[in-house]
Amino acid sequence: MTQLSTKNISILGSTGSIGVQTLQVIEKSNGFFNILYLTTNKNIDLLAEQIQKFKPKGVVINDYQSYLAFKKNYTFDGEVLFGQEGLLRAASDSENDLVVSALVGFSGVSPTISALEAGKDVALANKETLVSAGQYISEISRKNNAKIIAIDSEHNAILQCLLGEDVSKVEKIILTASGGPFLNFDQKKFDEVKVSEALAHPRWSMGKKISIDSATLMNKGFEVIEAHWLFNLSAEQIQVVVHPESIVHSLVQFVDGSIKAQLGPQDMRIPISFALNYPNRFKYDFPRLDLLEVSSLNFIRPDTEKFPCLQFAYDALKLGGNAPAILNAANETAVQSFLDGRISFSSIPKCISYALEKVEHIENPTLKDIFDTDKFTREFTLDFINKII
Amino acid sequence: MTQLSTKNISILGSTGSIGVQTLQVIEKSNGFFNILYLTTNKNIDLLAEQIQKFKPKGVVINDYQSYLAFKKNYTFDGEVLFGQEGLLRAASDSENDLVVSALVGFSGVSPTISALEAGKDVALANKETLVSAGQYISEISRKNNAKIIAIDSEHNAILQCLLGEDVSKVEKIILTASGGPFLNFDQKKFDEVKVSEALAHPRWSMGKKISIDSATLMNKGFEVIEAHWLFNLSAEQIQVVVHPESIVHSLVQFVDGSIKAQLGPQDMRIPISFALNYPNRFKYDFPRLDLLEVSSLNFIRPDTEKFPCLQFAYDALKLGGNAPAILNAANETAVQSFLDGRISFSSIPKCISYALEKVEHIENPTLKDIFDTDKFTREFTLDFINKII
Repeated sequence: MTQLSTKNISILGSTGSIGVQTLQVIEKSNGFFNILYLTTNKNIDLLAEQIQKFKPKGVVINDYQSYLAFKKNYTFDGEVLFGQEGLLRAASDSENDLVVSALVGFSGVSPTISALEAGKDVALANKETLVSAGQYISEISRKNNAKIIAIDSEHNAILQCLLGEDVSKVEKIILTASGGPFLNFDQKKFDEVKVSEALAHPRWSMGKKISIDSATLMNKGFEVIEAHWLFNLSAEQIQVVVHPESIVHSLVQFVDGSIKAQLGPQDMRIPISFALNYPNRFKYDFPRLDLLEVSSLNFIRPDTEKFPCLQFAYDALKLGGNAPAILNAANETAVQSFLDGRISFSSIPKCISYALEKVEHIENPTLKDIFDTDKFTREFTLDFINKII
Repeated sequence: MTQLSTKNISILGSTGSIGVQTLQVIEKSNGFFNILYLTTNKNIDLLAEQIQKFKPKGVVINDYQSYLAFKKNYTFDGEVLFGQEGLLRAASDSENDLVVSALVGFSGVSPTISALEAGKDVALANKETLVSAGQYISEISRKNNAKIIAIDSEHNAILQCLLGEDVSKVEKIILTASGGPFLNFDQKKFDEVKVSEALAHPRWSMGKKISIDSATLMNKGFEVIEAHWLFNLSAEQIQVVVHPESIVHSLVQFVDGSIKAQLGPQDMRIPISFALNYPNRFKYDFPRLDLLEVSSLNFIRPDTEKFPCLQFAYDALKLGGNAPAILNAANETAVQSFLDGRISFSSIPKCISYALEKVEHIENPTLKDIFDTDKFTREFTLDFINKII
């Protein structure tokens, strides 16, 4: 009985938004989870608090200065590992039953691969992993009999709808999108958007990178690509619908015309708890949804002229090969430049479009090709940004 | 592999609305189903057409005059059985893999019991069976390892949401109600409602009895009682929400706060096909739901002052014993009197309320007590009707 024995878990990115909420779920799980590793990039103060509370076997600090500062300022009996190597070590630890991959951006790819290669199930919150290296990741997941369990509310919703179902009976899935902060914003004013406006997501409180991706709908585009790899569906089988209330987290339509949906309040702890306990459910006291209070659920066609990033994702998925890796690297670079105040909001899709058009397409990339594509596209996009500003 | 061998099926009530649609599904199932028995009350012309097309092993005609007329006017090589005895014979035939119980009203109880006692799975469209004799039916279903698979769109939706789930992790279910034709009708004018108005259901095309039950919300009340028996839930765990679009057919909330819903167009062939193929799904070309076309889904608190029948059902469920059988018999009698033009629409709840109050309550009824309660309550309600008109 898995319910009775504890589950060993490592959380890559424990000081980020998903990491913190994962620990909140674990705290409510009556000792069912035993923490092996917690990791941070630079947030050593929060890491130290988490150590106090959760007594991990070890920690990883990715940033070297922060690693040194931690060693100097804190005492901790367990292992203190550093950098990418430390992350790979934590991800592949033989005692892990489950690895939560909640790292931000492309840096999440290698540790996720490392965990899957060690045969460890991965609760995946890092979407760049599947976007950039989906084919490779799917293959090693299959080969090592290690499950990828999506934490993303949308894919988690699909996973919930597929419990007990034969996946070959899926006709299509419908990913819902809140529409982001600019759903009803005048497109002509996209040049003047302030960083703070783009960060102000109407429904979810999230990290900066994903908040901007939500504002451009690139985030939804990534989810289309992820869904392709997670559920083995073609681009045509993946529909995106804007649902401003963000209550229906996604839907699955089966070959008999029946549709199943997963709903809930905007609380990431629900999909996190499902991913941690999959395929079981535990009782948690998260706030409940009151349908009568919500009262109305609306569904609107997404405007891909206003939000071209969504269309770019479909294009990249159809192109295949390293195209999604180009898409991701160009986006990650452009978003950082926007956050740094170097380019306008409306320049983000321009950077992506330019990279997709100009960076060399490789039809059957090796993993090395994917990493090279990522590196090259970042430099290429930075060059482009330096030219346009 | 159940998918490859054919399934033997008998349809009790094949000329009614659900029976006809069941045959439409079977016609689209590429020979997967083999028909054993078809049955009708009086509609021998349609039965003869169905015989031509589906070549059953036998038929049952419930009404004696119609039975004689069939014998006289039609030639059929198979068995031609008569009345309740014929129905029991068809329901319990040893060759049955599945019995569809689509009889109207209390007459469906005995054949359903007969099928379950023979260890046959029952696809149940007759709600009076579980309303009146739920405890007894649940027990023989368990004892004979014979499943009850609900055809009703609401319970079928719950069943779909529970696939692959642990039923003990259900926190509550939410049954949706269209609200019926009088959702926005002035309650003060209920006395003047014409039969044709009450029959004009805004969303579903159904038989007369169930159409009136939908107009009074008694139908939803019955579904609350059915859900209690089908899913082993208390009255407090069963919520009713008015959802005028009738797209979300019902929802399940789990102990982690996650909610699953089943959606679809208003086409009973979808739940019927799920019940026939349960727990598998087959591909069917029924019309698909377009969420963008629907565009808005709304949820409203039901008004139990305006529609007291819904509250009566909760009351009867909490009272237990023979109270639901009283509720059902009083309602069936009152609805028939309304359809016959003898009483007003607003008299229906008065009949039920009076019977619930006055007919003797039996806490632990035997099946005989249930049948006696049914018979007595009908006479009692007719007496009451004769007094008030």
